[in-house]
Amino acid sequence: MTKQELIYQIKKKRSFLCIGLDTDLRKIPKHLLDYDDPIFEFNKQIIDATKDYCVAYKPNIAFYEYLGSNGWSSLEKTISYIPKDIFTIADAKRGDIGNTSSMYAEAFFQNLDFNAITLSPYMGSDSIKPFIKFKNKWVIILALTSNIGGSDFQNLKLETGDSLFQKVLKTTKSWGSENNIMYVIGATREDKLSEIRKIVPEHFLLVPGFGKQGGNLENISKYMMNHECGLLVNSSRGIIYKGSGKDFAAKAAEEAKMIQMSMDTLLATRNI
Amino acid sequence: MTKQELIYQIKKKRSFLCIGLDTDLRKIPKHLLDYDDPIFEFNKQIIDATKDYCVAYKPNIAFYEYLGSNGWSSLEKTISYIPKDIFTIADAKRGDIGNTSSMYAEAFFQNLDFNAITLSPYMGSDSIKPFIKFKNKWVIILALTSNIGGSDFQNLKLETGDSLFQKVLKTTKSWGSENNIMYVIGATREDKLSEIRKIVPEHFLLVPGFGKQGGNLENISKYMMNHECGLLVNSSRGIIYKGSGKDFAAKAAEEAKMIQMSMDTLLATRNI
Repeated sequence: MTKQELIYQIKKKRSFLCIGLDTDLRKIPKHLLDYDDPIFEFNKQIIDATKDYCVAYKPNIAFYEYLGSNGWSSLEKTISYIPKDIFTIADAKRGDIGNTSSMYAEAFFQNLDFNAITLSPYMGSDSIKPFIKFKNKWVIILALTSNIGGSDFQNLKLETGDSLFQKVLKTTKSWGSENNIMYVIGATREDKLSEIRKIVPEHFLLVPGFGKQGGNLENISKYMMNHECGLLVNSSRGIIYKGSGKDFAAKAAEEAKMIQMSMDTLLATRNI
Repeated sequence: MTKQELIYQIKKKRSFLCIGLDTDLRKIPKHLLDYDDPIFEFNKQIIDATKDYCVAYKPNIAFYEYLGSNGWSSLEKTISYIPKDIFTIADAKRGDIGNTSSMYAEAFFQNLDFNAITLSPYMGSDSIKPFIKFKNKWVIILALTSNIGGSDFQNLKLETGDSLFQKVLKTTKSWGSENNIMYVIGATREDKLSEIRKIVPEHFLLVPGFGKQGGNLENISKYMMNHECGLLVNSSRGIIYKGSGKDFAAKAAEEAKMIQMSMDTLLATRNI
């Protein structure tokens, strides 16, 4: 999917919501355990119920690997089931030497046909560039994350005066363009958010700290929305586990719709 | 496996060799393609032929994910087949927020029963600690890698005077001990190697740059071996693809044996 196609979907659906498919056998409604593939059945019903309110789905790969070859098979079915006009992100946070990165790139972009993958920058250019080679595919590089440990290294001051996360933004943006690179920026670091937009004014940002992790949608938009929106704001557990009974998909849809309506308002205030 | 058990194996086999199972359908001998599971068959024959010369195997997870649910099944069979007195490393380079790291930890330590996993430090403490909780399991944290992009961020100078990789060593070593943390140190950075031993004198180091990536075994030992050895030196393609015909496993064994004999000499010079 190209940047223009993604923006078209955002404008059409009046939403920049990404729904995280962190699907956990221990958390899904009990009645689904009677199905041959409960994980896929859960995802299928969530997708059917929420697809009009979001522009992206983000399966968290850990939750599928946890189930071994069966989990991988559920992931394959899920990604095939997602409508082609919805952006798909493999939340994998990979990062390895060149020839290994090429294997991961083929696994996620070619075999599974994801639109994007999250990557860790620690191993540098040859860990990222094999992914960027794929046409109309995206890398989403970890820059500033909202977890507790995020500040252990990402906020370290370099001798140049930059923080490590600022240097990551400045260096990696030259490896591609705003048409194939996005950044993960945690929603709980509001003090840093406007600095980030100065370094990468045109790039899409994937903001995962919204919902359970405590980010606030208005502040995210205030500090990080650009003239094309430039945001994908993720909620996982706050949507998919909103209900725990047979009506779980309807509950998820209600929650997603409520967020979508807030997003509609926020887009309108920026004339998008 | 405990540190003492690993050292016992090193002394018994006179080897600190780790063999990387970067098993690629496009590179294995053609006659194996007739088997139901060519990847497992290749690994099985390599393990049978080389297990007396190495103390560790390190499947590179990318190569299995590349094959989807079938690849994951080959990985499950491979890890079950490796004798229990050999150390097993999931070369996965994962690193995610706490609850996701817990899922990866269960996937690799509990379900697959690996002894160790490689991790990226970028997301900080809560991305590493869920793995450290597992008794007798190991995390192997990326510190200084030997790939081209390794210097993009790892060598950045901080305002304190440390390089980023030095800070990673200093910070992460307090999260566990030399009984559950190892570090990935690339073999091609000889100028940095003795600095590293000053920061982590007692930790095991996994050194992956040997063989195809150009590291030299004598220099690795000179700068990084400690009084208990403290090294696992990896070779992947240089061993497993040494031969390409029906005798591929015998060729791999010859190569592994030659490396083991050099290691025997190097251990002896340090009275180990």
